[in-house]
Amino acid sequence: MVPLIDFLIHEWLDVDELLTRPRFAQHSRGSIDDLVTAASDIAGTYFEPAHRPSDLVEPYVAGDVAVLPEQTRAAWNAYRDFGFLAAAHDEEHGGMQVPRVADLATRAIFHASAASVSPALLTDANASLILKHGTEVQKRVFAETELIGRWTGTMAMSESQAGSSLSDVATRATPDGEDFQDDPLGHRYRVVGQKMWISNGENDLGENIIHLVLAKIPGPDGTVDPSTRGLSLFIVPKFVVDEDARIVERNDVTLVGLNHKLGMRGTANTALAFGDGGHEPGGRRGAIGYLVGEPGRGLAQMFHMMNAARTEIGLLGAAVGFAGFAVSLDYAKQRHQGRHPQAVGKVADSPQVAIVEHADVKRMLLAQKAFAEGALSLCLYAARLLDEQQTGEPADAARATRLLEILTPVVKSWPAEWCLEANSLAIQVLGGAGYTRDFPVEQYWRDQRLNMIHEGTHAIHGLDLLGRKVLLDDGALLADLHTVVNATGVAARTAGLVAEADDLLAAWSHVRETTDAAWSTGDPRDALANATPYLQGFGHVVVAWILLDVAVAASRSRHSEAPGKLAAMRYFYAYELPKIGAWLDVAGRREPLCRDLPLSEL
Amino acid sequence: MVPLIDFLIHEWLDVDELLTRPRFAQHSRGSIDDLVTAASDIAGTYFEPAHRPSDLVEPYVAGDVAVLPEQTRAAWNAYRDFGFLAAAHDEEHGGMQVPRVADLATRAIFHASAASVSPALLTDANASLILKHGTEVQKRVFAETELIGRWTGTMAMSESQAGSSLSDVATRATPDGEDFQDDPLGHRYRVVGQKMWISNGENDLGENIIHLVLAKIPGPDGTVDPSTRGLSLFIVPKFVVDEDARIVERNDVTLVGLNHKLGMRGTANTALAFGDGGHEPGGRRGAIGYLVGEPGRGLAQMFHMMNAARTEIGLLGAAVGFAGFAVSLDYAKQRHQGRHPQAVGKVADSPQVAIVEHADVKRMLLAQKAFAEGALSLCLYAARLLDEQQTGEPADAARATRLLEILTPVVKSWPAEWCLEANSLAIQVLGGAGYTRDFPVEQYWRDQRLNMIHEGTHAIHGLDLLGRKVLLDDGALLADLHTVVNATGVAARTAGLVAEADDLLAAWSHVRETTDAAWSTGDPRDALANATPYLQGFGHVVVAWILLDVAVAASRSRHSEAPGKLAAMRYFYAYELPKIGAWLDVAGRREPLCRDLPLSEL
Repeated sequence: MVPLIDFLIHEWLDVDELLTRPRFAQHSRGSIDDLVTAASDIAGTYFEPAHRPSDLVEPYVAGDVAVLPEQTRAAWNAYRDFGFLAAAHDEEHGGMQVPRVADLATRAIFHASAASVSPALLTDANASLILKHGTEVQKRVFAETELIGRWTGTMAMSESQAGSSLSDVATRATPDGEDFQDDPLGHRYRVVGQKMWISNGENDLGENIIHLVLAKIPGPDGTVDPSTRGLSLFIVPKFVVDEDARIVERNDVTLVGLNHKLGMRGTANTALAFGDGGHEPGGRRGAIGYLVGEPGRGLAQMFHMMNAARTEIGLLGAAVGFAGFAVSLDYAKQRHQGRHPQAVGKVADSPQVAIVEHADVKRMLLAQKAFAEGALSLCLYAARLLDEQQTGEPADAARATRLLEILTPVVKSWPAEWCLEANSLAIQVLGGAGYTRDFPVEQYWRDQRLNMIHEGTHAIHGLDLLGRKVLLDDGALLADLHTVVNATGVAARTAGLVAEADDLLAAWSHVRETTDAAWSTGDPRDALANATPYLQGFGHVVVAWILLDVAVAASRSRHSEAPGKLAAMRYFYAYELPKIGAWLDVAGRREPLCRDLPLSEL
Repeated sequence: MVPLIDFLIHEWLDVDELLTRPRFAQHSRGSIDDLVTAASDIAGTYFEPAHRPSDLVEPYVAGDVAVLPEQTRAAWNAYRDFGFLAAAHDEEHGGMQVPRVADLATRAIFHASAASVSPALLTDANASLILKHGTEVQKRVFAETELIGRWTGTMAMSESQAGSSLSDVATRATPDGEDFQDDPLGHRYRVVGQKMWISNGENDLGENIIHLVLAKIPGPDGTVDPSTRGLSLFIVPKFVVDEDARIVERNDVTLVGLNHKLGMRGTANTALAFGDGGHEPGGRRGAIGYLVGEPGRGLAQMFHMMNAARTEIGLLGAAVGFAGFAVSLDYAKQRHQGRHPQAVGKVADSPQVAIVEHADVKRMLLAQKAFAEGALSLCLYAARLLDEQQTGEPADAARATRLLEILTPVVKSWPAEWCLEANSLAIQVLGGAGYTRDFPVEQYWRDQRLNMIHEGTHAIHGLDLLGRKVLLDDGALLADLHTVVNATGVAARTAGLVAEADDLLAAWSHVRETTDAAWSTGDPRDALANATPYLQGFGHVVVAWILLDVAVAASRSRHSEAPGKLAAMRYFYAYELPKIGAWLDVAGRREPLCRDLPLSEL
């Protein structure tokens, strides 16, 4: 993956220009390349060997800890010891201040090597949220201790009755005594409730676990705001600590159980109870939690972590897609079977050919390449926008924010869907061998299947895109995307990619017309009845744009990766882009079939 | 599934007309319905409980037997004891002479209950081949003993270097002594070679295992025909038996190992060695095998079993798709989460709704219904053609044979691909719960994934369809399909389904034009470069035709299932049929991108 990343960050995303900005003064092209190489080395040494054990040895409960395989702990330790968790963070918080695009590029390498070890790396997103919204003491005690990898972090939002529907969160937080505002770690509350689907809610990687918990604070009359505006955010550590990050006592956070999953078994997915009375610090009911920011801002703050997590999941999907591509390409070059069409079924007196010679095997490999590289490119583009948000001129930073807003639903959902297809094709290339557990491709496919579900299902992102993002600021986000898509079209024409430029602009017009048509009655029930197919069509057009933009860079490059970039783009325009009509047209005509279907007809 | 089958076999496929034919004189509508009900009862009592154990307790080797979970054995015993294995067979061979359409309908019920138990039921296909091509003694000794379930059967074709490429089979058969032609069980050979991917190659279900083995007979000069015309077929039992089907001694068939699979773990998938010297009957080298039919006819004979197996796999895919649909529909009615679009993200003071109320959940359910019912209908249509082949007037029987020939690639591949998508949607409906092993949907998805691989991959069936079937007899098969598709169009217009009739006929024209365009240069390398996308497009049009034909029957029916049939058809025409252009157009323009791609660009 290193040559691909090298091409994308240098020849396409121009990380070298970024490095001229003051924030990155300590870095050079050489130091960035060294970081990528180090990631590749550590991934090969510690993450690759953790891939299969993380699946075979499911986390188990010993006492109140979820025990992970030793290979997973070794991978975490290596990652931590190098300092990767803090790579993109400020030097003042112990970070290296590398661009996010380089940071996420290294993370793609780790994800490809052992995907189910990766969610522990979300500790970084947890720390980021605290750095953004926490007090100075919270930053020092919680965020900085997480960033050195002594503690790990989670996001604890879902409950059994409140998964996609967060307004229904039933966890409650009440002020902890008269002096609750005087705690140096923040306003101190007692948190009571049950949380579900918490990744890394228990593990034996670090000394403490920092949960970021969504809960509602009852008003004086005991009632809560029934909407998501009633949600506040709390730091709830497994162990209560002092101002010097020293462990004081066990907090009342209890592991209720582990989920037994189809894949991604290297991450303990947990049900947690807060304040069930098992460990009552100070003898009072409820887990101790410290308010982050203002009450009622919980969901807005959590979106900071969720958006990071969503980009991360896009990257995870892309990386696992790439891993399957690499394994199946290697297999196809080694495995000999069959002959060319002229000889099919006739004579066996010519030697069999490597299956990579067959047109249909090449099709399955090229599709995987287009899906995985398209997804990875999209995610790194989003990472580049994060850098622009942080270091660009104000107008550029604002535009980057708007583009990130509209691209996030695609970043989250497209790699999940199409790199799952890629992983299925990897199995298909291997045939019967791919269906056995002697090869890693079946595990990639199982691991990947989670990505369409967690951090918001496809349906949620479809609603977010068509129900919110395209409407925001009177369509300003869509207009910004229009500008960059058009710019790619112009550049592609200049580069001689005229037919593809035409196809892209026609497809983009199709998206815009569909958007208008979907909302033409102004009724959300009409517009959103086909939000998921809209997301699918929109996503395919976004990736077509990204792949063409990459191809423009490839067309003027002599990099060894450049010809493959053009091939992947051509595959996508020939085989994939023509699919968009089937998705967009039901959204555009506000097809009522599914919405209006009587349940008796199901 | 019983009401659905009731509708399909009575209201659509008119099994009642079939029952007027002499072969089925012993049967009535009542006896057929009783058979379906008995299947449903036995499946519920014995197969459902075997589903999860068959996955959790993988087959293991004890001595030279692969041990299956007791629930699998109980399911097999119940199936056997009722006489289902012989249901469609002649009474003279111990069968019930029920129509194949009813036989396969009952089998769909068993497949839906415990898919990975089902391959043992292929014993019936093995017996059928022997009944078709064997000697009278072979029929009595091997086929009839299999049909009462005392012994099980396999098809042993693949070798590690000869999977899709059967001309490369290296297993050899040589005459066993001077008197090799005098054995009452058939011409006796010694078989030496290794076979791979043999389902049920070992098990503890019966007293003996009858392998049908493809091998080549060397000529006087020691060489073999290098083509598939060199293949002959042999009955190679695990235990050598006498003319009264009594076990005499162990044959030299050795279990080399078991494959550890992603799913379908209830079937032991084996590597077998023939004649490795472990058990040498009579002290001579090689496993004893009896020639079936003439030398050099092995592959042609094996196609008899393979075509049955391919229909069976379509049915298996359809049934597992239906199982996921049923579980996710039930879950969606129980699970409450979220509110209607007007309320999304706003207030939580209205109660949450059952998720089946959400438009996108209904879309995912209706898609599953269309895929599973479309696939099941297609397979039962094929079964009805088998009955026509056997009992129709000569011209009708010949036409049924031609239709079966051209439909078999679709029957094998379409359910495998689209019921996999259905099973993925079932997981998606359940969300995080669907990703756990607490629900059966993840296992359905894993089990289903095999169906695109075994009995010929998608690529093989694409080549068979576009490279052979559409060309046979100067396009006669395609012309027959044209006739029945047109008839459905006419009937649909009469039934008031005018728009769908137009869409179907336009789609069918698209298929025909694509077929001509693909072959317009006459070069197989051009025509077949996109044979898999062609198969995908062709398959979608075939299923559109089937669903419309079912809908026509529904439109004149008051059956409780009728409204749902129209809904599934409408979904398919609105959301699925528009996808065909993306697949057909690359085939029609003989897109050379994948075929000509230099390997260096992958």
